[in-house]
Amino acid sequence: MRYMEDTLLHHLHTNDTEALKTFLFTIEELPLLQVFTSLSANEKAIVFRLLPKDKALALFEALQPTAQHHLLRSFTDEGATEFFNDMAPDVRVRLLDELPASVTKKLLQSLTASERDATNLLLGYERETAGRLMTPEFITLKKEMTVEDALAKVRLQAREKETIYTLYVTDQRKKLHGVLSLKELLIAEGSQLIADIMSHEVIYVATDTDQEEAARLLNEIDVIALPVVDRESLIVGIVTADEGRHILEDEAIEDMF
Amino acid sequence: MRYMEDTLLHHLHTNDTEALKTFLFTIEELPLLQVFTSLSANEKAIVFRLLPKDKALALFEALQPTAQHHLLRSFTDEGATEFFNDMAPDVRVRLLDELPASVTKKLLQSLTASERDATNLLLGYERETAGRLMTPEFITLKKEMTVEDALAKVRLQAREKETIYTLYVTDQRKKLHGVLSLKELLIAEGSQLIADIMSHEVIYVATDTDQEEAARLLNEIDVIALPVVDRESLIVGIVTADEGRHILEDEAIEDMF
Repeated sequence: MRYMEDTLLHHLHTNDTEALKTFLFTIEELPLLQVFTSLSANEKAIVFRLLPKDKALALFEALQPTAQHHLLRSFTDEGATEFFNDMAPDVRVRLLDELPASVTKKLLQSLTASERDATNLLLGYERETAGRLMTPEFITLKKEMTVEDALAKVRLQAREKETIYTLYVTDQRKKLHGVLSLKELLIAEGSQLIADIMSHEVIYVATDTDQEEAARLLNEIDVIALPVVDRESLIVGIVTADEGRHILEDEAIEDMF
Repeated sequence: MRYMEDTLLHHLHTNDTEALKTFLFTIEELPLLQVFTSLSANEKAIVFRLLPKDKALALFEALQPTAQHHLLRSFTDEGATEFFNDMAPDVRVRLLDELPASVTKKLLQSLTASERDATNLLLGYERETAGRLMTPEFITLKKEMTVEDALAKVRLQAREKETIYTLYVTDQRKKLHGVLSLKELLIAEGSQLIADIMSHEVIYVATDTDQEEAARLLNEIDVIALPVVDRESLIVGIVTADEGRHILEDEAIEDMF
């Protein structure tokens, strides 16, 4: 174990990211957990982000809730941010695997908007992508809920969510199955199932979709928000029409000069 | 009575609008009602629109519901439309008093969008004003309603209303007293009164507000819709942000040529 820890720290302190990445790719789950707990907050953030997605998810789920919380807070630390900031964007894109959707959600929800800004680099979303624009403030429903249950959930969560006029239907893993408007929910009978009133045609963008492309889509299809999904089609955020308009306005101003 | 009827028909058939207007200004309520019922549909529409607002309201309320309905339908008749179309816009503005808000509401609600277009001239709303843009599809609440009552009303009416995400609070006469978002309604406790959760600061436009001014206002203050009020501050319609955007886009295209 001592050897594992020394190797990891050596790669970390010599900034040898490629060697670190290879090391993390080969290490088993249990030794990883043991080495991980002995690291400093900054080191944890860096190591965690260099893990492949499946290992990151396993490690995160093995941590106690308090340790999970500390790990997510460390994503805003300057040391970790600088580490990734020093990389060229293409290297960063190659080295940082997508975060598991459940981790992304917890991370985005535990941060204020300005803190979110600071973690964008660690999230692995490059500049001017939908991932950078998205907000975690949306409400999800389940197919098997009744309209009354769903309305109760909306009323409970409305205060803390930016967008409540579009509702997303997902399974337990947050895979996107449908969408409906709050208006459609209000019109339906209380005993109807969400599965029966939702629309199956969901237009979405990916975290790495260019922000202008997302903005143009929002402008064209006249919706309040577009869901943003990761590579597993799990919903990780939404981009609102307001954000889209700001992007198009900024772009129009840029084009004038 | 015969004399009254002859005089009115004479002015009508000689297209002497000024004389007709003066005659209608002086005639008493009861003889007016008697003469009115003997007119053809086209003639009814023309005479009704040339009445001063208070007389129009009194006459309308004296009619049976079926007669009210027929009168409103006659507003789309070609004969009546042509009569007003032949006038210069400034003459039309001077001759046509504002319709009573209760009549406007019934009229707009009984017509399809394209029929509404055809009645704009008789409504007295000039081209490129908020009156021409507005839709009657909005929900009004009363101050003394509870949140639960209000939510029940919203669910009942949502299907037929274009805009349900902004709710307008009025008195019996439809005078605008406040505004709240559907989100605010959903967040509130079921037993709270609308009077206690509504915002008293309502930004509105008038029926004769220039459409570009209304569109700019909508764009600046980031609301879903703006209420449109008549000269008595009674709400007669709303202009949606979507409509506003179309106006600004059309204007941007015009400016290119």
